[in-house]
Parts: sequence; C-alpha cells; structure tokens
Amino acid sequence: MSGSRRSIRELLRVPTGGTGFDLGAIHPRTTPGLPPAGVVGSDPKDWAREQVRAIGAELGRQQEMLFASAKVDPASGRRLLLVLQAMDAGGKDGTIRRVAGTMNPLGLHIKSFGRPTEEERRHHFLWRIRRALPAPGYVGVFNRSHYEDVLVPRVEALVPEHTWRARYDEINEFEEELADGGVTLLKVFLHISYDEQLDRLLSRLDDPEKHWKYEPGDVDTRARWSDYQAAYAEALARCGTARSPWFVVPANRKWYRDWAVANLLRETFAGLDLSYPAPTFDLARERRRLVELRPSAPEGSTGGR
Amino acid sequence: MSGSRRSIRELLRVPTGGTGFDLGAIHPRTTPGLPPAGVVGSDPKDWAREQVRAIGAELGRQQEMLFASAKVDPASGRRLLLVLQAMDAGGKDGTIRRVAGTMNPLGLHIKSFGRPTEEERRHHFLWRIRRALPAPGYVGVFNRSHYEDVLVPRVEALVPEHTWRARYDEINEFEEELADGGVTLLKVFLHISYDEQLDRLLSRLDDPEKHWKYEPGDVDTRARWSDYQAAYAEALARCGTARSPWFVVPANRKWYRDWAVANLLRETFAGLDLSYPAPTFDLARERRRLVELRPSAPEGSTGGR
Repeated sequence: MSGSRRSIRELLRVPTGGTGFDLGAIHPRTTPGLPPAGVVGSDPKDWAREQVRAIGAELGRQQEMLFASAKVDPASGRRLLLVLQAMDAGGKDGTIRRVAGTMNPLGLHIKSFGRPTEEERRHHFLWRIRRALPAPGYVGVFNRSHYEDVLVPRVEALVPEHTWRARYDEINEFEEELADGGVTLLKVFLHISYDEQLDRLLSRLDDPEKHWKYEPGDVDTRARWSDYQAAYAEALARCGTARSPWFVVPANRKWYRDWAVANLLRETFAGLDLSYPAPTFDLARERRRLVELRPSAPEGSTGGR
Repeated sequence: MSGSRRSIRELLRVPTGGTGFDLGAIHPRTTPGLPPAGVVGSDPKDWAREQVRAIGAELGRQQEMLFASAKVDPASGRRLLLVLQAMDAGGKDGTIRRVAGTMNPLGLHIKSFGRPTEEERRHHFLWRIRRALPAPGYVGVFNRSHYEDVLVPRVEALVPEHTWRARYDEINEFEEELADGGVTLLKVFLHISYDEQLDRLLSRLDDPEKHWKYEPGDVDTRARWSDYQAAYAEALARCGTARSPWFVVPANRKWYRDWAVANLLRETFAGLDLSYPAPTFDLARERRRLVELRPSAPEGSTGGR
C-alpha cells in the first residue's frame, strides 16, 4: 500500500500468457496503488469520494473529446467499452452509478445483460452482444456480458464442456475484431469475498428499500461459490490478451473499488491520446454568415437577451 | 417573479384546447416560479446549482422506485419519458448533462434523433420513435423527437401541407397509446431568443473545444427563425393534451432552465405516487437460507471481510 508510481492498470492487470492465475491469492479487501496514509488522511472514504469527483471531471472531458472526434471522423470507429463482471452483490450497479455517473449521460451507452431470453438462446451467444455495442464516439458499459457464457453454462452444466471451452477462443477472436473496429475494451472483475457477499445479501433483506434487489436464486448461485471462482479464474486467464487485458479490482471496500475503476478509466482514456478535432469548416466565413444574417429579431418573435 | 405557491408545471404549461397560443409572448429571459430574492440570495446561479443537486437526489430516489416497481410488476409498463425540443443551441444537451445527469445512468435511456436516415425515411415517421421507447421502469430522454416531423418538413416544405398537418392527430393518438401503455410523457420546449442563439452559436466558433458542436446548416435554419417559431407554436398548441401537456421553459438563463426542468421532473414523479415494492419472497425464509448455507469460505477462495 505504498505510494507506488506504477499505474493502476499495471497493478491490477491479470497476467497474460501465463498459466495458473490464482484469483484466490488476490485479497478483496486490499487497496493496491492507494497513496500512503499521509496523503489519504484519516477518512479514506471522503478522500476517495473527492478523488472520484475530480477524476470524473477529467473523464467527462475525455468522453467529450471521444464523442467530438467520432462526430468529425466516424470511420475511425473509436469508442470505449467498460465490461463489468462480478459475483452477485459484487458492486456492478454501484460502480456504474458512482463512476460512470460522473460522465455525460448523453455519451454513455449502458447495457445490462440478464439471463438470455428465448430469442437470444436461439442465436449464437455473441448475437445479443453485437447488437448492444456502443456506436462510435460513445462510452459503453456492459453490466455483465458475453463472459456470462463461460460462467453460468459451465457451472450449471447447461452445455457440454467442449461447447463452453470453445468459447474462450471465440471470445478472443470477437474481441480482436472489436479492437480492429476501434473499440477499446476495459474489462474489470469486481472481486468480493464470500463473507462480504453474505453481508451484502443480508443487508438487502434488512432494508425495505433494497428488497427489490434481492433474488432468491442468488443463494443457489452462492452455494456454488468455489465453482464460480474457478470459472472466473480460468476466463480471466484465458481471455486476457495484450490488447484486451482483464483487471481484477479488490472490491470489498466500495470506496477503493470506485477509486480504482475511475483510475482505470482515466488511464485507458489517456492511452487513446484524444484531442478536440479541428473545425471542418471555415471559421471566419461562418462568423461572417452569422453576423450578416438579419441582425435583429424577426417580427413576432422574442429577440432580447 | 414572486414566490408563487403554484407548481412549476402549472406555471409553464401550454394551455390546452384553446386557440391562438402565443409563443412570442413568453419571454425567454423570464424566471417563472423562482422564489424571491430573499430566498435565492445574491448569486442565483449558485443557488440554482445547489437546488438542482438537492432535487437530483430526490429524482434518483424516485427513479429507483420506478425501476424497482417495474422489476416486480413489469406488466404495469410504467416509465417516464422526457421529450426535449429546442432551436439549435437551445440547451438540450446541457439540460441532459446537468439535470438527467443527476439520476442513475443505469436507469436512464437517452436517445438523440438526428436527420432521419435513409432507412428511417422509408418508414412511417413514428417508426424510429417506437423503436427507441424506454423499457418499463426506465426514465427515457428524447433529445429531439417525433415533433421534428411537424417542424422541419413544414418549414423546409419537404412534404405537402396535408401530410404534416395530419401528423398532429397521429401524434396525439400515438401519445394516447403511450399513456395507455404506462408511459408518462413530460414534453418540454426550451425557449431561447433570437439574440441568445446568436451569442451561443458565435461562442461555438470562438472556442476551439466547441467547434465540433457547430454545424454550418444551423445558420440556414436560423434564417427561418420565424417560420420555426410559428411551427413550434402550432405544434405545442395542437399536441398539448390534458394527459400529455407541453411545457415551455424560458431558457436564455441556463441556471433557471436547469432548475425549472428539475422541478418539472420532480413534480411529474410526484404525480406517479411511487413507492418501493413489497418483497415477492418470504424474508425470514431467505434469511435462514443465507445464514444456514455453508458459513465459512469454501476452500481455495478468499473468505475474509
């Protein structure tokens, strides 16, 4: 927990190409990259909230440059897609509200993926994903994603092993294709502990305003915790590539989670090297056209300032 | 500009059923419903920003109740749809960023309508609108809308008069159908003056970070200012119904505009009389299931808090 100069991307990145990635070795209560106590002060929650606000202002600016660039040059296809995965109550919704919520909603494209519908099940598992991709210029957020298809069917034995195993390569090819099409992926797993999940699920039962978030099926999923952790570990290792790596954010502490995801977004935007586009018209000519147009308010309309 | 007790909805509502609605009589720099100076203080911008923040917290809560209710009872179809119309540079984007942006982006569904594509032109003018409706539980925002189809084709003479005239009834029937389907419409015209538009368009030329917002075509539209004002006046009068009225927000002052739209949203939500839904499961039984499930972390996974 030192004031490391390494980027949050470096610190949280799942190693690619190696074998035996150990998700269990990453403790969900740690806070990699957090500045020392002398910087953070006595209330890390307050500090983190303030940081997220400041980073949010920068994210909003980056998002606008992305949007503006795509408007002027749509063929570039440039867009950013944040993919959020987590166990139930892992904090996906809160992260979207508090981190994505700092950006301009006009340029956000958020899509939540639930259990596939009957129509979706009749198609290839990537069909519904392709339909939900953000347009160029947008920041997309996937609340769950195509990664569900190497988790649920595996743990619940819904399809034969060779089917879900083949999906790792399909996903890698798909994401390569996305990258070629201008999509910068930021894939984040919010990592909570077994005990933390219990606390959060119980708190949904204790608070009448949270009852609607509770799903009895979450207990059945929780009963297969180890299987899901193993499925996540393999998916993160198999589908973390140099171009589209996975990041594991320790997420027991919500304030750290928000701060880390905000930093991952900031660093990812920085890698895009965005700027405001040059005008595609003659500035002086447009200024002339405007001021030379009938200078006073037309009849019957309100002209004053 | 007194501290009127009338609601902002009452104050800004376009009269329905009458004839001769005079848009030109509403001055874009006025501030209907604003509390007296003793309440607002010396800096109305600061005051309004603080108010929008406070109202935003309430909007977020209402939005969550709407979302939760629809999750438990999707058949109700309940959703809210804010329709924003304005002349170019009228402040639609800013209103979305600053007012809709106070809500949870997860429950927002924002759609911007541009010039119809070739595919869209091959369909009925409401085709693209129907496809963009928010799902039950969501707050939708239409950045421009089907009202463009009684404005642009009229002023630019793209279709015969009987065609665009027929659309008033089509729109009224469509909106009646939406209301029957659980959609609460909030239709807002952001009203700026001819001079204010000039200032805003010129400022887009002056600021390199705003060049991308400038469209040379906006000058041509500006040249037909009176025609567009007349088209707006008729559309607002013809398509303001008791169930789905139109509101005119004087919008020369951005801080008033944001404050007024936030209040319109708050009052509209209040009319829905939302609450958090009762649980659809047995609370005690679920609590038992959770705590009786293997209490310690499974092997190989991180269990600590």
